[in-house]
Formats: sequence, C-alpha cells, structure tokens
Amino acid sequence: MKSDIEIAREARKRPIGEIAAKLGLGPHDFLPYGHDKAKITHEFIGRLNGHRHGRLVLVTAINPTPAGEGKTTTTVGLGDALNRIGRRATICIREASLGPNFGMKGGAAGGGMAQIVPMEEMNLHFTGDFHAVTSAHNLLAALIDNHIHWGNALRIDPRRVTWRRVIDMNDRALRQTTVALGGPSNGHPRESGFDITVASEVMAILCLASDLADLQARLGRIIVAETFDRQPVTARELQADGAMTALLRDALQPNLVQTLENNPALVHGGPFANIAHGCNSVVATRTALATSDYVVTEAGFGADLGAQKFLDIKCRLAGLSPAAVVLVATVRALKMNGGVARADLGTENVPALEAGCANLGRHIENLRGYGLPVVVAINHFTSDTETEIAAVRDYCAGHGVQAVLCRHWAEGGKGAEELARAVARLAEGDEARFEKLYPDEMSLWQKIETICKRIYRADHVEAPPAIHEKLAEWQAAGHGSLPVCMAKTQYSFSADPSALGAPSGFTIPLREVRLSAGAGFVVAICGDIMTMPGLPRVPAAVRIGLDERGRIDGLF
Amino acid sequence: MKSDIEIAREARKRPIGEIAAKLGLGPHDFLPYGHDKAKITHEFIGRLNGHRHGRLVLVTAINPTPAGEGKTTTTVGLGDALNRIGRRATICIREASLGPNFGMKGGAAGGGMAQIVPMEEMNLHFTGDFHAVTSAHNLLAALIDNHIHWGNALRIDPRRVTWRRVIDMNDRALRQTTVALGGPSNGHPRESGFDITVASEVMAILCLASDLADLQARLGRIIVAETFDRQPVTARELQADGAMTALLRDALQPNLVQTLENNPALVHGGPFANIAHGCNSVVATRTALATSDYVVTEAGFGADLGAQKFLDIKCRLAGLSPAAVVLVATVRALKMNGGVARADLGTENVPALEAGCANLGRHIENLRGYGLPVVVAINHFTSDTETEIAAVRDYCAGHGVQAVLCRHWAEGGKGAEELARAVARLAEGDEARFEKLYPDEMSLWQKIETICKRIYRADHVEAPPAIHEKLAEWQAAGHGSLPVCMAKTQYSFSADPSALGAPSGFTIPLREVRLSAGAGFVVAICGDIMTMPGLPRVPAAVRIGLDERGRIDGLF
Repeated sequence: MKSDIEIAREARKRPIGEIAAKLGLGPHDFLPYGHDKAKITHEFIGRLNGHRHGRLVLVTAINPTPAGEGKTTTTVGLGDALNRIGRRATICIREASLGPNFGMKGGAAGGGMAQIVPMEEMNLHFTGDFHAVTSAHNLLAALIDNHIHWGNALRIDPRRVTWRRVIDMNDRALRQTTVALGGPSNGHPRESGFDITVASEVMAILCLASDLADLQARLGRIIVAETFDRQPVTARELQADGAMTALLRDALQPNLVQTLENNPALVHGGPFANIAHGCNSVVATRTALATSDYVVTEAGFGADLGAQKFLDIKCRLAGLSPAAVVLVATVRALKMNGGVARADLGTENVPALEAGCANLGRHIENLRGYGLPVVVAINHFTSDTETEIAAVRDYCAGHGVQAVLCRHWAEGGKGAEELARAVARLAEGDEARFEKLYPDEMSLWQKIETICKRIYRADHVEAPPAIHEKLAEWQAAGHGSLPVCMAKTQYSFSADPSALGAPSGFTIPLREVRLSAGAGFVVAICGDIMTMPGLPRVPAAVRIGLDERGRIDGLF
Repeated sequence: MKSDIEIAREARKRPIGEIAAKLGLGPHDFLPYGHDKAKITHEFIGRLNGHRHGRLVLVTAINPTPAGEGKTTTTVGLGDALNRIGRRATICIREASLGPNFGMKGGAAGGGMAQIVPMEEMNLHFTGDFHAVTSAHNLLAALIDNHIHWGNALRIDPRRVTWRRVIDMNDRALRQTTVALGGPSNGHPRESGFDITVASEVMAILCLASDLADLQARLGRIIVAETFDRQPVTARELQADGAMTALLRDALQPNLVQTLENNPALVHGGPFANIAHGCNSVVATRTALATSDYVVTEAGFGADLGAQKFLDIKCRLAGLSPAAVVLVATVRALKMNGGVARADLGTENVPALEAGCANLGRHIENLRGYGLPVVVAINHFTSDTETEIAAVRDYCAGHGVQAVLCRHWAEGGKGAEELARAVARLAEGDEARFEKLYPDEMSLWQKIETICKRIYRADHVEAPPAIHEKLAEWQAAGHGSLPVCMAKTQYSFSADPSALGAPSGFTIPLREVRLSAGAGFVVAICGDIMTMPGLPRVPAAVRIGLDERGRIDGLF
C-alpha cells in the first residue's frame, strides 16, 4: 500500500466552494485559503443563530498503546461512510501542531484511505490559527513585562507572574529561562519560560468560545499573575483583551477542508488533551451541527480522559448532547492491554486478548454511565485472526454492545459502512439520555474525587494541604462552579502508565492544581506534564524539504 | 478629511481575481486568501521564465524628519496615476510588521486617498509570511541547541552561537535572556536573546532569493555559530535548510492586493532597513516587471541608505536596472533640514527652506551619480505656500531636475498625474545609464569607504583593528565579493542624527561588522542598532479591539 502522503497527494480534491455548498454556504459565506481550504465567516455563523439540526457522534477509544488504535482514521472513515449511506455528515477534528512535525513524525489527519486533505498544509501553517494563538498569547506576555517596566501601577509581583510565553516549536532550551537581563532599559529580570502553543490557555479559550464577544470575555478573565498582596491580576486589567481578540478574529472562524471522498471536514483548534480539554472548537462543532445531519468528532487520548472531558467540559460549556459514542479498539492494542509484548502482537493470542478486553469493558461501562448508546469499532489490522475478532465481538455482546469490524484504512468509507449503519441505528433510535458526571454545584474537590472514583475506579485521591487550600480559595472566589480538567497519564486508568487493562485498588496522587479562569476550568494534575517537548537525536526536520517538483516532502 | 482606516474601510474593492487578471493571471495562477488577497503561484512565476517587460521606477526620499515625507503614499499615488495615464503599473512595497502595531501606531500602506487595501489585515497576520519567517528562524535555533544537547558532533562552541531567536512582537524583556536552565534534560545553559522577526536574516533571504532552489541554497549558507576551533557552522551542516525551505514555500509567493483605485499591488517581504537592505522581495519585483508596463517600488529610509542599498544590493544581486528615480520631499521636511523647529513648520520660511534644500540637492547628485534620471515629487501639505513651492521648483531647476507638486494624499491618483507624466517622459526617454557604486571585486573595506565618502561625503572612516581583521578574514574566506549593507542613522548623511541638511567634514565611526552569508552581504554598523523594540508606557494595544460590528478597530 502507498504511504499516507502519497495517497494524500493523489487525492481528487474538489474546489472548496463545492464542499462549502454541501453545507449550504454561498460564495460569500466562506473565505478561501488557496483552492482547497476555507474559513467559514463569522457572518454566516451569526445567521445560523444557534440553530441545531444534526446528531453528534463522539469517537473515542480504549487506552492508547504503542500498537495504535486509529481513532482519527475511524472518525474520518465513519464520516465518509455516513455520507455513503445517505446521511449528510461532517467531520470535526483538531488541527495539528506545527512544532512536533520537526521532531518525531508528522501527524496526518487520518491515514490510509481515510484521510483529510490537503495533508501537507494542515501539518504546516494551515490557515494560520496557531500562529494567531501564539501572537495573542505573547502579546499578553509582553504587556505584563511592559506594565511592570513602566511603573507597575497594578503592583504585579514579578516573582508571581504565572503567564509564560509560547512558541509552536519543540525547543527544550526554552523550557526554563531568565528574561529582561541586560540593565534597566530591558525591564525587571525574572525567571520564566516557554510552552508549546497548544498548551496555551488562549488555545483552550479559542476552542470553548461561542463567538467573538465570548472570546473577548474569556480572554479578559485569564489570570496572569498575583499582586504583592496575592490578589489575582487578569488580562482585562492589563487591557490586553481587545487586541488579543483582534489577533484571534480570523482564527475563530472554522476551517473547512475535505476527506479523500470529498466530504466536508471542519478542522479547527487544537488544545492539549492533558492541561486542556483536547477537543476541536465549539464554534466548528456547532456550525457543523447546524448544517449537517451528522457530526462525527473525536476527543484526545482514551475515553477515561478524552470522552470524560468532552462530555463534562465541552458538552457542558457548549450545551451539546451526543446521540451516540463509537469506542475504537484494535485486536493488537487489546492484546497489549492483556500483557502481550509489542514484538509478539502479530501472533494470535485469544486468552491475552480476552484479558485485555477488561479495558474495553470498563470504558463501555463508563460511557453507558453517561446515558449514551455505545458501539465498538474494531479497527482492522491485517494480522488480526477470525478467532480474535470473534472473541472481541463475543465480549462486547456479553456487555450488550455491538462490535463492528471496520476496514476504512484500506477501503475508505466503504470499509466503515457497517459501522455507519450501526451508528445511525443507535442515533436515530433516540436512545441517548445524556447526563453529565457531576453537577456544576458540586465542590471542586468533590468533582475531582468523582472523576477519580467513578471513571478511573480509584479507591482514594491524595492531595497535599496546599492543594486543598487552593481549591477552597477558588471556591470562595466564585470559581467553584467550574468543571475540572484532569491531567493524568493516558496509558492507564490509574496514574501509573504501566498499569494496563482495568486496574483497581489504587490511589490517584494529586500533585498540582491550576485555575484556567479564562478557559473556564480547574486543571488537576496527577503526575509530570510536559508542556514543552524537545527534539530527538535525529529530528524529522533533517528529512523534511522540497522534492524535485517543489512539493513538501519528508513529513512522514 | 476621514482617517486612513475610515477611507480604507470604504474602499470599493474588486474581487482579487479581477486584479489578478490585470496581470494576465488565470484563476489557477493565484491562491486566494479571502476575497481581497492572493498569492501568485510558484508555477505561474516559473512560466514567466525570467521575462522582463516593464520599466522599474524607484521612489526614495530626502532624509526623514518628524515632519514626514510620504514616500509610501507617493509610491501608491504614482502607481495609480500611471494607470490613469494609460500605463499598466504595479506597485511593489514591503509588508508591515505585526509587533510594532501594538506599540505606537499601525503602519498603513500609504495614506489618505493613496492607500493599499485591505489595511487591517495587512497590518495583522496578512497571508502569514512573517509567521513563516519566525517559524523557519526558530526551527534553526531549536536545531542548534538540540545538536549541542545530543553530543555536539559539530563541536559548536555554545558561547559562540550567534543565531538568536525571533518573535514578531515588541518585547524588551526578550532582548537578553539565558536559555536551557533547569538541568541536563533542558540542554546546555547559555546567554541568548530574541530579535524582532523583520531583523531575521531569514527575512532578508526571503527578499533576495530568486526561487525556491536559491532560497534553500541561501538558507543553507547562514552562519549560526563557531566551533571550538573558531570555524563557522552553517545551517546546511545542521541539515536545517530543507525544513526551513518547506516552512517558507508559500511565503516566497508574492502577495497580490489592490489600491483604492483597484490597481495591482504586490506587498511582499519586509527586511529591516538597517541591518538588512530594506526593500520588498526580488520575486515580487521580477513578477511585476514581467506582467506590467511599470513597476513602482520604494526603499527604506532616505536615499543615502535606502536607494544606495536598493541599487547596490538588491539591483546588483537580482540584475535589476531602474529606468527612473522619484525623490520625495516636503516643504515641511526641507524647512526642518534648514533648521526650523517642529512647532514652527506651519509658518512660511523661504530662507530656511532654501537652506534645507541642500539635503535634497545632495541626494539628487548622488542618484544622478548612479546614471539615473531623477524627478522630485513635492508631496503637498495644506500649510505649503505658493512661494515655498516655487522656491523648491527653482532649486531643482538649478540642478537640472524637474520638481512636480503632488496631491495624491487628498486626490488619489488624479493628484499625481503630472508626476506620472514626468516619470513616463524620463523612463520612456531611455535616459538611464545605471552604474553601481562599486564593482564586486573591490575589497570589503574599500566598499565601506566608497559608500561613506561618495554617498555620505565623510572625510574619514574609523574602525578598530578587530574590524579590519574580521573583514580580512572574510575576504580570505571567499566572501570578499559580497556587497556591503550599511547600518547608520537614517536622519543624517553623517552618523550624528542631529546633523541635518548636507553636513561635511565628518568621520564615520564603524562599530561592528557582521557577515550575513545567507542573505549575501556584509553588514557595517555605525552606531547603536535596536533589533528588538519595546512597548511605550501606553501601548496602542490597549486601544485595539473589535467594534460593535466585529471589525478591527484602533489600529490607528
């Protein structure tokens, strides 16, 4: 089979205006970016006036393993398949980050015959959204140091500036720096550092804002520092919110592209899945819901982190309600969850597979706990045996859930038609009775406990007194009704990345809490979170370049 | 009269495809960015195959003063006027930098009725070129620290890394930093800092590269550090050139926009006018020359710096040859050069004006020294008196040069028709006999002396022995044939910004020399050069935002 980039290059793309027309957009309802990308205008979205029409389908997965699950590939394949069976479906996924492409390998949007194109551009500058986030974030940073430099009327404590700078690049040397060295004309020296752009709270805000006014309000609420009296200082107090909104005006408009089968895809926003919620933008999802029969979207990591945040943060804040959930699994990844080493994944091993299904089973239980109908998608690999596939089907049937074998990677939408029919049956049966995990009124600490105990199945949550004090302080300051965003290893239900399957009898250690007052959630961190990756010994950058025809090469 | 942004918003823009058609571009020869911006494709430019057709007109000015000269406004007005008198003219100017907009005030492209639109977007992200330069520059920086981190096979001396990072933001706190603090996993700590993006050598390279292959070759030649043995380390040795070229692939395609009178303008590239050459891109200028009768372009600062670099760097490296030069002056600026204080500029003062004309006269002499026909454009201000205007005309006539009064700011192209006719007469009379100031073979030191003595009229050039050693070293290493890029105050022919008019009997003190081996010039610095501006006490950012209709406001 051809490589993803070869398949992407051979795509028979339709002019983006034709794709836009499928969503009911006229020529002035979108802004073209080249001939194969466009932004849907604020004006068009404003005219939709909150109209809902489509059914929302979430694609999530078992806990990720090095064996691969194919969540995005399944999202794309399902979208194409729904269109094939006569439903006007739009795919909503996140944008790729530029920096990591120069590290390990580029992140395609899907793979094989289930891809979104143009792949190269989506992995480079695309329509500039991440650059806009970088600019808006760093303008705020510059305004903080500038305020301190020019007399510091707000009495910002330079030792307590928490707003760092961002860059869309893997650059370990920027993790920890000192700034403003060199004398009085360069400002007040202090320690600081850079995160990668996707870790910016501005990115999370862009993805949760409902419109430009809400965007500006959220930006204004960002807390950047404390005063000498330990009072929070906001972006609004620095009068940064207007200029930041101006920088993000175009970026808030969703990006329209297409699948290999010429179906619409809105690729928009890319917040971290650990210190943020890891879903594509609310504006894109709502726009797709207003213009399509079905919207297929995905969330970061496995269902314990991704689906939980999608449901309790994004759906809560945006008033969304899914009609069905697709839980992606592979025979290989289930075998890894059952204890098989990576080198042995090609060998049939039904007992290990059945043991690994415990991971799948717990995710099924959790998702059904939200009142949502679930279908399992078995993403086919050539090494899968008939017996193994039958074992997964039987396991799911035992849990009252259908498991469908999908071949979209090899066959495109055709290979996911059975999945599409299963999804349509569930969604159109109106079985969903969506209930969030916890009410807004629950205290912040109880929200954390509820997630850890009911979703992860921990026995205890441990936190030092300082964390309890912080939570009580935010509770008192009026932030108690915010949802909680968990930052935990994605490899296990527990905080131990090596505890695969369905561990129990463990404690979740809470290390740190952060208030993202602009985005509108409290981050609870259980472990080390890397917010600035480094490059490997031989970075992908050394292979990337132009081929003899001037096309981007080496992204894969 | 309305403000620039009000006039810009009321522009009756034509769809960008109509503007493109004026240059002979079909619908697939350009990539639209929204409905009023486009990039001209590499494929179209490749098909031009170096074809030249149009006449190149340089717009330059007397030494700048706080009174203002209106060089860009005149460039736009002349372009529109040439179209009015039946010549298909295209305007070529630089792009605006994003960061400084949040400091003092936005930089419009022209002003009054002589503007290029869409103004707001050109002052914000535009088509993303500067973001691409920032990314490419910072990828190289990350690869340097990464190389040192992973064993340092090239034996880079971390104390001698000269490649800093860049950001398109006025941020004084980033001028001087330490990076890679925090322990072994963050790399080797060292001092470094950030410049503003327009100061990047990558920006100069983008503006001088003739095509993608030349772009990659120049990027590869960038010198980023020295080894422990004091040998230069290049971007090519770090294998960074391919990925940097991939990041800049789209950015090398010129941006097409339009004037208020719907004539084509290529707005592309924005190198600093001090440590770089300060002109728009070679690719844009060549593309315009192949598709128009006239190309009107400008160079940074006054003619001593801007025109000299345009002629001896850009025209030399790109094989361009101007047909005529327009020298812009205002009565107010000439009076300032004649010693009048800013507060008194509204009062008629013919003796001071005549004294100030010495500045104008020397620029005329210099430009004619290049073998180029010159016309003086008197950019009209309402405070100018008839007597004053007549005095300038007489002074110019005494130097054998026509001076034309222009009212394009108030009247658009109509107000510059007389100038357009004068320019067409000179250009179509084929009077130009362009000769560069110095031959490639002249030594680097002699080139510096030649510029200082023949253009600035200095008696001496002073330089410490270390500079002579550096120049001799570069000469020996094969860089002796490069042109020289002077970095000097723009306010005076001398190195003293307060010495207005036509000073003589002075010495130019050379402080530093830098080798821009990728861009292809040696920078000679005579004074302090700021490569990272700061924000003022009350930055423009606090006024910038969206108005009630969601439009960008406060850029002015």
